Amino acid sequence: MKGVRVVGSGLIGTSIALALSAKGIPVEMTDSDDGRAALAQDLVGSARIDQVDLVVLALPTSKLPQVISREFQLNPKAAFIDVGSVKTKPLHQIDSDLTVSRRFCGTHPMAGREIGGPEAARSDLFLGRPWIYTPTVNCDEDVLTLVAELIETLGATPIRMTPDEHDSAVALISHLPQISASLLAKQLRLGPEDWLALAGQGVKDTTRIAASDPKLWREIIAMNREQIRPLLIKMSEDLTNLISEFDDDDAIEQFIAEGRSGRERIPGKHGGRPRDYTYLPIVIEDKPGQLAALFRECADAQVNIEDLSIEHSPGQFTGLITLALSSSDALHLADHLAHRGWNVHSPR
Amino acid sequence: MKGVRVVGSGLIGTSIALALSAKGIPVEMTDSDDGRAALAQDLVGSARIDQVDLVVLALPTSKLPQVISREFQLNPKAAFIDVGSVKTKPLHQIDSDLTVSRRFCGTHPMAGREIGGPEAARSDLFLGRPWIYTPTVNCDEDVLTLVAELIETLGATPIRMTPDEHDSAVALISHLPQISASLLAKQLRLGPEDWLALAGQGVKDTTRIAASDPKLWREIIAMNREQIRPLLIKMSEDLTNLISEFDDDDAIEQFIAEGRSGRERIPGKHGGRPRDYTYLPIVIEDKPGQLAALFRECADAQVNIEDLSIEHSPGQFTGLITLALSSSDALHLADHLAHRGWNVHSPR
Repeated sequence: MKGVRVVGSGLIGTSIALALSAKGIPVEMTDSDDGRAALAQDLVGSARIDQVDLVVLALPTSKLPQVISREFQLNPKAAFIDVGSVKTKPLHQIDSDLTVSRRFCGTHPMAGREIGGPEAARSDLFLGRPWIYTPTVNCDEDVLTLVAELIETLGATPIRMTPDEHDSAVALISHLPQISASLLAKQLRLGPEDWLALAGQGVKDTTRIAASDPKLWREIIAMNREQIRPLLIKMSEDLTNLISEFDDDDAIEQFIAEGRSGRERIPGKHGGRPRDYTYLPIVIEDKPGQLAALFRECADAQVNIEDLSIEHSPGQFTGLITLALSSSDALHLADHLAHRGWNVHSPR
Repeated sequence: MKGVRVVGSGLIGTSIALALSAKGIPVEMTDSDDGRAALAQDLVGSARIDQVDLVVLALPTSKLPQVISREFQLNPKAAFIDVGSVKTKPLHQIDSDLTVSRRFCGTHPMAGREIGGPEAARSDLFLGRPWIYTPTVNCDEDVLTLVAELIETLGATPIRMTPDEHDSAVALISHLPQISASLLAKQLRLGPEDWLALAGQGVKDTTRIAASDPKLWREIIAMNREQIRPLLIKMSEDLTNLISEFDDDDAIEQFIAEGRSGRERIPGKHGGRPRDYTYLPIVIEDKPGQLAALFRECADAQVNIEDLSIEHSPGQFTGLITLALSSSDALHLADHLAHRGWNVHSPR
């Protein structure tokens, strides 16, 4: 990439620009709101651009067809991408102009925050996140190359999908959760303020994205209405069933268990299902060097640590390390550590 | 408090014990599972107990009446509290024995995690959190004094309520969110695995508590059924209305806005002292030995890791480790790692 023009200085556009600029790639920021563009450019830093070879359209999807024509006039040799949450409908609008559509590839970085604007931007927003791209058969080869380069430069993982598959997937894993969070948060209007003051992390997490912008979501939902509707109907049926069986404790337990099994489908490592790890709890003294010493023991014992967690309590001089291992590694390591005088507990 | 006996070595019981022990108050741990009690006592540390003046019953509410009789025989002069999520029904069972009920006060710390067991316990779990207590008119004055002392020792905020008001409040701010999260997570069973690999923070947060224990929630919901039912019916009606108006963009925007206004009713900084950590993101190759090497660097740099998280991208063999450190340690370690060729990002 020689130079990138970002049209739309919101959270996503500015975050992309920050990340590119950090890698030494010159970026120019624009926005329909001049003040926002100026703030974004200030955050990103200014640099001389000789040639724009990539234009990132980071703006409401409804404005895409109109803005892309104008931008195409300015930089007819550049590649164009959008970063919108819905892919099929906008594509139909762009496809009508074959010249433009050869230079365009739809993309969707799976990253965001519930707060918007250039102030909320961060260069590491895409780090380790999936970034979907949905090229059509018309798409020029050099456009695809630039898209891959952009995604990798930002530390994200490129995932190729058809526009239709993308829209079905995000209806389930993004749009339905938004509506569900809004539905729950709406119920919080029912209680007195004293009760809300008792809110814990559970209800806070469950309703966090309900703080999102209603105008933005009006548009996203309208663009993907036909993919979302059947999911809403299914969810409504499940809720009606729960209410009708609400005196049956077994049915309630079954319902909570089904939710848990759905939740478990969200992968941990390498995009696979959470594997069947054995967990080994070890109580350590909470001081520098203890973790390193423990990992040296793991290396000596030739076991592979799949995951780990650290729990420790301020004011306490102990901490708990839980290592996730294969069951054979867990047994072997437990034995090894016990012989070496570590405070290791039974694998579970 | 001279000595505290904690009956039930799960998350809440062990967290209370850790916090008391950190303040020098001797605690004895018990559990129907001996291994769990041993792990909990090891984490808490052992201390000689001359006199038990407070017994904390941190166990499933259904076991409360039976266990309290047994514990009352052992320590007839002690004060007894529970920490359960529902207050009215269990109270009716205990109230039948007036001698016990004078020594008992129901309480409910508004803190928890979606994972259970002594491994998940932490002494700061209650810091700045509301802790509801629901005394009856029978309750002895010295019991109330001990309850207040316990809550303050643990850094929580005491809030007095009637059992009925407590149960209505938690139905809205705790039980309804649990059911809503489970309902959404259940829908995640509908999509192929590839889609779930795209899951972002929104759906992860919205469904986090869906990982909770079905048996625990079977009991909580059964205990508070009549308070929860009307809320579920109202939520179901709102969902049905949304579906019937789903072609009306104004109605959708209104719905999302109502959710936002409900979310805004949750007070911002209530309780929860933010832990003052600085976060240091490090991108590593996801292969055996990398974590050990990283922790050796931390030991060389003599920094103390307060917490950490590991994020993997689907299908990629890189991972993002985020270390939580004091701000001075974070700056020092960032510098150290950068010099040693690690892919370390700016502390934040």
